[in-house]
Amino acid sequence: MKDVQGQSDHRGVAIQRVGVKGVHLPFLVKEKDNGFQSVLGNATLSVDLPHQYKGTHLSRFIEILHDWSRRPISTLELRNILDVTRERLDADRAHLRLGFKFFVAKKAPVSGIPQLMDYDVEFAATVDGSRTELTVGADVPVTTLCPCSKTISRYGAHNQRSVVRLRVRFTEGQFIWVEDLIRTVEALGSCELFPLLKREDEKYVTERAYENPKFVEDVLRDVVVAMRNEIRVQWFEVDVESMESIHNHNAFAWQQEACAVKPVDETARAGSEKNLEPVTTSSD
Amino acid sequence: MKDVQGQSDHRGVAIQRVGVKGVHLPFLVKEKDNGFQSVLGNATLSVDLPHQYKGTHLSRFIEILHDWSRRPISTLELRNILDVTRERLDADRAHLRLGFKFFVAKKAPVSGIPQLMDYDVEFAATVDGSRTELTVGADVPVTTLCPCSKTISRYGAHNQRSVVRLRVRFTEGQFIWVEDLIRTVEALGSCELFPLLKREDEKYVTERAYENPKFVEDVLRDVVVAMRNEIRVQWFEVDVESMESIHNHNAFAWQQEACAVKPVDETARAGSEKNLEPVTTSSD
Amino acid sequence: MKDVQGQSDHRGVAIQRVGVKGVHLPFLVKEKDNGFQSVLGNATLSVDLPHQYKGTHLSRFIEILHDWSRRPISTLELRNILDVTRERLDADRAHLRLGFKFFVAKKAPVSGIPQLMDYDVEFAATVDGSRTELTVGADVPVTTLCPCSKTISRYGAHNQRSVVRLRVRFTEGQFIWVEDLIRTVEALGSCELFPLLKREDEKYVTERAYENPKFVEDVLRDVVVAMRNEIRVQWFEVDVESMESIHNHNAFAWQQEACAVKPVDETARAGSEKNLEPVTTSSD
Amino acid sequence: MKDVQGQSDHRGVAIQRVGVKGVHLPFLVKEKDNGFQSVLGNATLSVDLPHQYKGTHLSRFIEILHDWSRRPISTLELRNILDVTRERLDADRAHLRLGFKFFVAKKAPVSGIPQLMDYDVEFAATVDGSRTELTVGADVPVTTLCPCSKTISRYGAHNQRSVVRLRVRFTEGQFIWVEDLIRTVEALGSCELFPLLKREDEKYVTERAYENPKFVEDVLRDVVVAMRNEIRVQWFEVDVESMESIHNHNAFAWQQEACAVKPVDETARAGSEKNLEPVTTSSD
Repeated sequence: MKDVQGQSDHRGVAIQRVGVKGVHLPFLVKEKDNGFQSVLGNATLSVDLPHQYKGTHLSRFIEILHDWSRRPISTLELRNILDVTRERLDADRAHLRLGFKFFVAKKAPVSGIPQLMDYDVEFAATVDGSRTELTVGADVPVTTLCPCSKTISRYGAHNQRSVVRLRVRFTEGQFIWVEDLIRTVEALGSCELFPLLKREDEKYVTERAYENPKFVEDVLRDVVVAMRNEIRVQWFEVDVESMESIHNHNAFAWQQEACAVKPVDETARAGSEKNLEPVTTSSD
Repeated sequence: MKDVQGQSDHRGVAIQRVGVKGVHLPFLVKEKDNGFQSVLGNATLSVDLPHQYKGTHLSRFIEILHDWSRRPISTLELRNILDVTRERLDADRAHLRLGFKFFVAKKAPVSGIPQLMDYDVEFAATVDGSRTELTVGADVPVTTLCPCSKTISRYGAHNQRSVVRLRVRFTEGQFIWVEDLIRTVEALGSCELFPLLKREDEKYVTERAYENPKFVEDVLRDVVVAMRNEIRVQWFEVDVESMESIHNHNAFAWQQEACAVKPVDETARAGSEKNLEPVTTSSD
Repeated sequence: MKDVQGQSDHRGVAIQRVGVKGVHLPFLVKEKDNGFQSVLGNATLSVDLPHQYKGTHLSRFIEILHDWSRRPISTLELRNILDVTRERLDADRAHLRLGFKFFVAKKAPVSGIPQLMDYDVEFAATVDGSRTELTVGADVPVTTLCPCSKTISRYGAHNQRSVVRLRVRFTEGQFIWVEDLIRTVEALGSCELFPLLKREDEKYVTERAYENPKFVEDVLRDVVVAMRNEIRVQWFEVDVESMESIHNHNAFAWQQEACAVKPVDETARAGSEKNLEPVTTSSD
Repeated sequence: MKDVQGQSDHRGVAIQRVGVKGVHLPFLVKEKDNGFQSVLGNATLSVDLPHQYKGTHLSRFIEILHDWSRRPISTLELRNILDVTRERLDADRAHLRLGFKFFVAKKAPVSGIPQLMDYDVEFAATVDGSRTELTVGADVPVTTLCPCSKTISRYGAHNQRSVVRLRVRFTEGQFIWVEDLIRTVEALGSCELFPLLKREDEKYVTERAYENPKFVEDVLRDVVVAMRNEIRVQWFEVDVESMESIHNHNAFAWQQEACAVKPVDETARAGSEKNLEPVTTSSD
């Protein structure tokens, strides 16, 4: 049968990305403490296409994703998936985004009841020749309680669910568990969320938020400071969006920074590679 | 050219609804006080299809919707649209749902600054022979402040944006402006929402919600009582959903009732027709 | 600490459903052939609330869902979850909906390459005193190729991805695997879909769809006939929606039927209970 | 009352963007031929916040959007909105995105029946000191018919609805009507879409698509060539996504290019300013 995709093209346009999107498959994601969890993945996988070829071979992307859907992965394995992709598709560059809901065990703040909380997580990677960029993102919901409302009112203060969307790109050779990113962000709202709260827990989170009022600006700044101090992060983007309980629209604050090269703390380096060269960041 | 749709079918299945969905067009919706507003409509229009015909003629649905997209309508005009539809499609029954964002003017509670607030509204109608059912629905966002959290905590109380989704079917010959439905529901939260609040307004809504704590159960019950007392309503469904500021999931309460025939208040009847026979309600 | 929810209420409104919505948890769903698969569940769990109580206890719903998130379930186990829910919440009625993506193994039609395809599935159950209603639903994507377009054109025919959304309520004591429902529906489009198609497979599905043109009306009728003949189904709803490749809106056909009591085929009855009494159907 | 937002902050973090998101308001959008149309806008408006201030004043953003919601705008007016925003908020930079459904009149290809088709459009602008970036985007749905499927099959070819998402940033002083962008893109699919097709029209679009097979790669390349040749475009991003009728996932191709400085065609320059300096592009 004729290979239509393999025919030549004469428009002189090298395509940056061509591939598949919205591919749902189960994946196994490595957990920090041990083992891995089965997640529902939503994958986007693509390669570049030189100007002389008419099309790519989409079925190979699906084969690669099926192959990897049953092997435990962390962000680090994305490099391997993309190396296979480049080889199978005969491409220089490859790009993968894998989004999924990820569950982390936590305990109610007073009663100590164990429970699972869900977070939207995204692993992304780009391989371009010898350059690799690994990005991990998490949407972390928190409570924010308005400092202005608290100050000007005789009692009460409006508060609401807000989402902190953080994406970080690792310094070459470094790595952060998504569980650690989530814990870092979760501590920076007026209070963190829990799936299950008994009465004593509800009293705790209500008072904790009231004692700790924060604008979206405050949460953003605290996350920015934390990321600037994080040696393993070379670039980050953070968006804090608050589903205001007093409005029918949202408040938000947003920041994107490429970090300066940081002095290397030897403890932090243990177990990671040495290459800390800043890589030119690109918009995804 | 052959009329494939007009061919005969031998499976013996009379189809209840066939038509078009997700048709976006501008529509003109009548306002209570005067005039009308241009809205972005999302329409679903269908008819029944007798068992002997293979298919319907979809282009006619689009012609009808285009015709009506430039004439001011309220729920009452839906009957006319469906009569035209039945005639053009040679059908016994027809069904229309028209969803849109609708804006209502309101003023900030203390500063009095005028503003527009948006609500998701739905008009729906079914005509079946001589029977007509008209339904209007609105999603009304409000603040809810948790009575339990307020009672057990030394200070503060968790609160959040909640949505009251109300759909009512009119008693035959009766009619309610969607602006009136929205106002009724909006008064039943811990506090109503506003697009624009100056500092004195923010103080007001914060204190108002704190003085007026309500569970989703409380809001639901207050809406149910209001609808049971509403002579123009023959059936209603209400769903109160609260985007809990302390959890990553929502709380909700739901009710669906066909109202008993109500004694007719002569004032309420003025200006409406006399037929108050309860019509058998059907799901959607 | 005060039990605010347990306080008495004087509005005289017994609430039909109050509970939690949008609860994401992993669940284990039994497969037909053997074992079970880990799915990402989205649960809604509720009970009725007598008129004299002010509120329900939401944390108990979360405890129940956590308990069941690690035990393999099919539709049949929903009854047990609801019995526990009624007991823990001291309620007469309980209602559960559990939505998830479910994967079914299939093979490419010519090359035979094995693969996993994803379907949106929903389990739902209502227990009301001694009455139980179990519903299973699946969204099954298929190709539809337009008979009119094929007939009137010199070559080609427009075709597109369409979704058949089928929900069935089981005859009391009967049960159908969701894999079987999916297979039944999938065979009724112009052609079924596959995640992975090699060139010989793509030729097959292209020609198969062209040889088998179907309107949404045709697919609907074929599903209706199949369900009318299915002794284990007491009620069904089917919606066929086609993302027309020639329009920016969709075509659809919809049907909802409560089935007549069917003569019992002894073979079909084997292994199921005998109660075939039709239960009054209610809208969701 | 205390101005909490005006208090000083000591974390040393200048915030890049803070403001409001998801603000729904009607807007009046200028049309190419004459007049303007009322659209349902979804606005995001933000400013930068110097490191020494604790917070911004969100109510002012809403006032500005309300002010502009009743004056006819094109992309060009976004500059004025942002100048007012910077002044009212005392900020150096401001950013606006305004998304809406926009209707364009078109005629059925054979019968000539006039109709309105809807497109998702986005206006965006950033003002940073003296630098202004204006971006216009449109999601244009088209039919794509697969060249491989056509070539290898005895008859037929799979086809589907695809969406071309194009965003362009204007060369300083230049401007393109969104109607023109849409027309350009719409001509580059296998066939364009229409809301209303009579039988003779359906024959036309079926045969036209079959005669004009295109992969997502083909559509992308044709759009890229068109944009490279467009003197008024300084940067563009294009994403072609195809809702494959034979799969349950999508195929896509993506490109982002900053254009080289183009020789200025005197005709094209008429009526526009002369500054054609390429502006450093940034990821949105």
